[in-house]
This record gives sequence, structure tokens and C-alpha cells, in this order.
Amino acid sequence: MAILVQKFGGTSVADAAKIRRAAERVIKAVKDGYQVVVVASARGHQTDELVADALELNPNPPTREMDQLLSTGEQQTVSLFAMALDTMGYDAISFTGGQIRLLTDSIYTKARIKSIDAERIHKQLDQGKIVIVAGFQGVDELGNITTLGRGGSDTTAVALAATLGAQECEIYTDVDGVYTTDPRIFKKAVKMNVISYDEMLEMASFGAGVMHPRAVQFGKKYDVKIHVRNSMNETEGTIITHEVPQMEGVVVSGATLQKDMAKIGLAGIDNVPGNAAKLFARLARAKVVVNDIIQTEIGPEKANLAFLIGISDLPAAKKAVDDIKDELGCESVFIRDDIAEVSVIGVGMRSHYGVAEKMFGSLAKAQVNIDSITTSEIRISCAVSRDEAEKALEAVCLAFELDKPAEQREKTE
Amino acid sequence: MAILVQKFGGTSVADAAKIRRAAERVIKAVKDGYQVVVVASARGHQTDELVADALELNPNPPTREMDQLLSTGEQQTVSLFAMALDTMGYDAISFTGGQIRLLTDSIYTKARIKSIDAERIHKQLDQGKIVIVAGFQGVDELGNITTLGRGGSDTTAVALAATLGAQECEIYTDVDGVYTTDPRIFKKAVKMNVISYDEMLEMASFGAGVMHPRAVQFGKKYDVKIHVRNSMNETEGTIITHEVPQMEGVVVSGATLQKDMAKIGLAGIDNVPGNAAKLFARLARAKVVVNDIIQTEIGPEKANLAFLIGISDLPAAKKAVDDIKDELGCESVFIRDDIAEVSVIGVGMRSHYGVAEKMFGSLAKAQVNIDSITTSEIRISCAVSRDEAEKALEAVCLAFELDKPAEQREKTE
Repeated sequence: MAILVQKFGGTSVADAAKIRRAAERVIKAVKDGYQVVVVASARGHQTDELVADALELNPNPPTREMDQLLSTGEQQTVSLFAMALDTMGYDAISFTGGQIRLLTDSIYTKARIKSIDAERIHKQLDQGKIVIVAGFQGVDELGNITTLGRGGSDTTAVALAATLGAQECEIYTDVDGVYTTDPRIFKKAVKMNVISYDEMLEMASFGAGVMHPRAVQFGKKYDVKIHVRNSMNETEGTIITHEVPQMEGVVVSGATLQKDMAKIGLAGIDNVPGNAAKLFARLARAKVVVNDIIQTEIGPEKANLAFLIGISDLPAAKKAVDDIKDELGCESVFIRDDIAEVSVIGVGMRSHYGVAEKMFGSLAKAQVNIDSITTSEIRISCAVSRDEAEKALEAVCLAFELDKPAEQREKTE
Repeated sequence: MAILVQKFGGTSVADAAKIRRAAERVIKAVKDGYQVVVVASARGHQTDELVADALELNPNPPTREMDQLLSTGEQQTVSLFAMALDTMGYDAISFTGGQIRLLTDSIYTKARIKSIDAERIHKQLDQGKIVIVAGFQGVDELGNITTLGRGGSDTTAVALAATLGAQECEIYTDVDGVYTTDPRIFKKAVKMNVISYDEMLEMASFGAGVMHPRAVQFGKKYDVKIHVRNSMNETEGTIITHEVPQMEGVVVSGATLQKDMAKIGLAGIDNVPGNAAKLFARLARAKVVVNDIIQTEIGPEKANLAFLIGISDLPAAKKAVDDIKDELGCESVFIRDDIAEVSVIGVGMRSHYGVAEKMFGSLAKAQVNIDSITTSEIRISCAVSRDEAEKALEAVCLAFELDKPAEQREKTE
């Protein structure tokens, strides 16, 4: 029998009615002939409440105890989920991370999965039971409880699907799938039927919050077919998978917008080996997450270096730069706190010319000035003024026809 | 270094302020030179809320899932408790039942302890850490989470004290200790400094709710010195221990009152072997808890049999008796739903005459009619009318001078 992993996030199990509705989806899959493994998150705002309880007692709680505390949220959901299935006439058994020996390292609050005991789960499935696993948590070699950090339940689900050889890993959320861009900004955005891991990684890292990049990376590494879909309806969602031949016809799959960005530029730093490394080591120590780096030489001895960060990191980044700028021989620092970044993403752009041209052209036509440009193999990003962000995204989306399903778009050279 | 086990119940850890206060008591013991192991219950009404969550989904939840759910309450407390100690400058580590391998049978919701891994605790204590253990819970051989039922955290504390060879097991509660009788009824009741396990068992079973009989039995079996004391003040509480020589001078240690009792009598049943067994098997199947049984032969072939039960069990007991009375050859059934039971308890009464006489005399003097009498080796109980219950308890308490500390009482023959 084929195994299906179904993951339900906190909003999908927030109360008894929602747990029942999620249980009905599980039962449907059982009736369709699957052995089903459910991964569930903590109910609604449970985790936030537990964090508040902890901070009331200790502003800087030991991370081991934090994980011991937070893991109870998922444990509660899975036992309640099993109870719901029981009363609907289906045999279910819940497991904590420890009970299926989901072994991690000992880096509390952001542990990495090492292995999972598939045997215990297979045994229960083969007895006809539905298995409900607490997401987000594991244990280390000594039995200390660990948690997997942001996106942890998605990671649990994908890891389980890989370990169990599941046919598919369904990620239930409150939207229909992954859209060509954020429908709250570009109303005509359409749902993608399929997206590659690499594209999804760029989408996730650049502002599309449907799935955490880490779970996508896991899926890519172990070749797990991920299906992002809506827990409130029966619509087919978005399949995240390896590149498939038909993707090649599509140049740009989606676009993203990150609105709350800032840019720090260091003009005229000494162009000697190690200077950039020094700067970014200093920023890492200050816990600043750097999105994009742009460097250009100016003459043989000097270079301009700029980087983009989230606006909330700006004070820490400023301080770090102030501390180190003299050491770098920096002539002046310039800061923009009104930056937004528009990106287009698509595996197709590897083998197609004209994507950059079309993007820059669409922005020019919309009279949006481009502050800076960065690219990866499957992404082009333009930094623009925040007050032109929506206009920029819309222009780019229309240029690449992201308001139409992929198969209806005009082919690009 | 001597080990001290300190157990804090749900009301003593209900919120952040109370957890902090409990943590201060722990720190005091550390400063006094003890290695301290804390056992904590779920905060305040957490368990009730989780039960309500479960029943909303399933009126008859599977017991395994119930234990998986309820055990999270204690897990939350112990991690929060460790965080509180950390912020006060003390190194602490919390453990679930599973993490110290508190092994039980697989009887969910009322599991029995089989063993505890003392090594893991000793190791932490020897590293200078305060160890915080979740009460009420364990795991079975397969790692399924079990709970120990009512009084479970007391049992965990006493079992840990036994396993670790602790000098004492402190049970913190919201009263100063065990009283000669219920001070809400007999205002002049005094706190006992010491009470034997056997007396405490009779007190606990007959209405004094300070400690669950099961934990006391455990303490007796493994010779654990238990100290029941108030978490809100520094007063010495009541020590529960084996009989000590000075106890022999005291005839009656305490008195109890159970107000909400009922009595069912079966007149003229066939006095043949097995009839009583049939009746009480039927009552057990109906989940009726029988407090006392009184049987007297009347002639060679018939007997009268009566038993006392809690009033809430009366409908179920009535039905059970109606079902079986013809089979027993019963001539008539009489029911009193207005019974209260007054008991005096004391290991001293084994070797002293005159206790029964003094008790019955005090009731007669107070013009309280005695419906029926039952005794054990260290207890005499009289069933009386509920509307005379308080008067009866007061008369008995005054007769045995339970308003005075044991050492000030007149010696009885």
C-alpha cells in the first residue's frame, strides 16, 4: 500500500472543529487506499502562549528547557487528533518525536534531523492504524527533547515522507498552493500547478511564505514529492518536485516582492583579499541576515561594496559597519532604508536570453528606477524604492504573463 | 550529601509568582546543604482544561491518548520551574517521566511504577544541578506515556525518595500539615507533629484529603520519611513515618468525618457461602466503592447485611441490589441516604481498652444515635445521621482531647 504523509499547520488544528475537519481529510485518504501518516503542529497560538509563560519567568530561558516546554504544544495536538479519529471510528495512534526516535543533534531550538525509526511507524500502519506524529520536535542521543526551529513541522513531514518512502507529502495550509506572486499585491496572480525545488527555494527565500526553505531543501535532497494545498477545500494545490521537461518551456515561473529592505553601501574600501570576509563575519556575529551582496571594483585598489538586509536588522548592521569601516579603509558609508526588492524566478531562464532585458524594460516602461541588480542562475532581483514596490511587481508580473497559467503564456526567446 | 525530595502540587505552581516562590524554597534547601530533587504537578487547572479539550473531541477518549495529552501539563511546569531557577542563578535540569525512565506497567490512566533510573538523576545532582521531575507520569516498556492516576505526583515524589535514598520527602500543600481532624468542622483541631503510615492511611481513606493513600502505602513499603508542610510558610509540618515508641502513649491520634454517605441494608438474605461475594462482585461491576460492610447472622439460615457507600454511588448501588436481591433470597431492602460516618484513628488503640466505650459514651452524652459500627485494628467508625454529623465529630474530638497536642493529653487506660 502506498503511504501518504499529510501535514497540518497550527491554523488547521486550532480548535476542535478544525481538528475534526482535518481528521476528515485523513479519513478520505484512508478510503482512497493510502496508509496515512499525519504530522501536526501546535494548536493556533499555543506556542506563542508558552513562549510568553517562559519569558515571564526568565527573559533568557535556557534553550534545553525551552524545547522541553514548547514540544508539549505538538504533543497535545497529536493526542487530540488521535482522539478525534477514534470517535469517527478509525484506529489511530499518536507519537512524540522521541517515541519514533526522531534523532537530532543537540542544538536546541534549531536541531537538525539525523534519523527516524521507520520500523515503529510501519508496524502501526501495517496493523491498519493511522499514525499521528508531533511535528517540530525530536530527541538527541541522551533523550533530551529538541525542536527543529522555524518551519520545523514541514521539515518533520518531508523527512518522514523520505524515510517511509511515501508516495507524496501533502502540506495543508490556508491558501490553494504556491502562486506566481503574492495575490494580496498582484490580484491576478495564478496558482502554479508545479514548481521545481530550486524555484521554490528562491521563492521561499525571497518572500513567498508558504513553505520554509529548509523543508524544501530536505525534499530536494531526498526527492520527496511535496503537494502544497488548502485544508479548507478540495482543490489540487501546487506540486513541488524535480524539474520536469515541460518546465523548460516556461521562462519565469513566479515573482516575489520583499518590501521592508534596507541597503548599506561602503564606498571606496581597500580591494584586498579578506576585506569582504571581515565585514560579513562581523555582520554574522551581529546576527544580521544578508540577502544580497553587490561588489564592483573601482580602479585597481578600491572597490564599492553594498548589501541588502531586512529593515529590522538595520540598527545592528549600522553599528557593525561603523565598528569596522576604518579597518576596511572605507571612504564613506551610504544607507537607504526605503528599499524593496522585486525578483523573477524560473529554471527556464538558464537557457533563455532576454529575461533580464524584459524585466528591466518593464520597469523602465513603468518609470521605476532600479537601484541595484543581483542575479542567481534562476533568479533576477532588482532593488527599487519602497514606494514604487507594488507598481514594480505589477509591471514585472504583466511582462511575464504571471496572470495566466504557464501553458497559456507566449513563448519567450 | 543528603538528598531532599520536594513535591509541589498544582496550586503551589499555578502561576509565575507561585513558581518563583516554590523555587525559593528549593534554593533554601540547597543553601542548607541538600541535593534537591523537585517533583511538580501541572499548573492550577491545566489538567482540567486538557480533559475538557479531549472530551470536546471524544466523549470516551482512548486512555493511551489521554495519558499522552495529560502528561504535557507536568512537562510544562518542570521546564518553567527550571527556567525560574536559572534566572535566580541556580543550575537546574527538568526531566519528563520518560527521561528518567520511570518505568510503569501499561495500564493507562492508573499505571503502577516498576522502576526508576536513579543513575541519570544522581549524575545531574553530582554536577551540582537541581533536578526537576514531572510528577504523575511514566513510560511503559515500549515508550508509551502512562499516568499514575489520582495522587500520582505524591506517588512519584515518594518513589523517587525511595529510589534515591533521600533523607526526606517533603510534600508541599496549602495547609500546615495533617490535623487531628478537619479544622473547618472542629475549629480547635491541632496539627499533628507525627503520624504513622497506618494511621495516615486510615485518615486518608476516611476523609482527610491531604495525601493520597497510594503514596502513603508506597512510603510505608519503602520506609520513606514523608513531611507534609505548607508551601506558604516555614512552619514544621507533619512527619509521616513508621510507628515510633512515643506514639504508644497516644490512644487516638485523629478523627475523621465523611458526611455524604448512604447505607443500604439487605434483610434476611440466605446465609449460604458465596452470597456476599455475589453481591459485592455485582457492586464492583457497577463501579460502586464500598466503604464498610456489616453482616450479622439471624438464626441458622438467614443474615442481615448492610454496607456504606458515598451518596453519589447510591443510584448505581440501588440498581445493582435490585438486580440481585431475589437471587440472594433477600426479604427486604432498606436504604438510608442521610448517613455520615465519624471515625477515630490511632495505633495506640491496639493495646488500650476503653476506646470504644469512650467513643460511644461521648456520642450518647451528646444525644447522637448510632446507626451502625465498624472497626479495624486502628479505627472505630460510627454511622450517624447526617444532621448530627458535626455535633458527633465535636463530641468525639473533645472526648479524646483532639484540641490539644498529643503530649498534653490525659493518658487513657
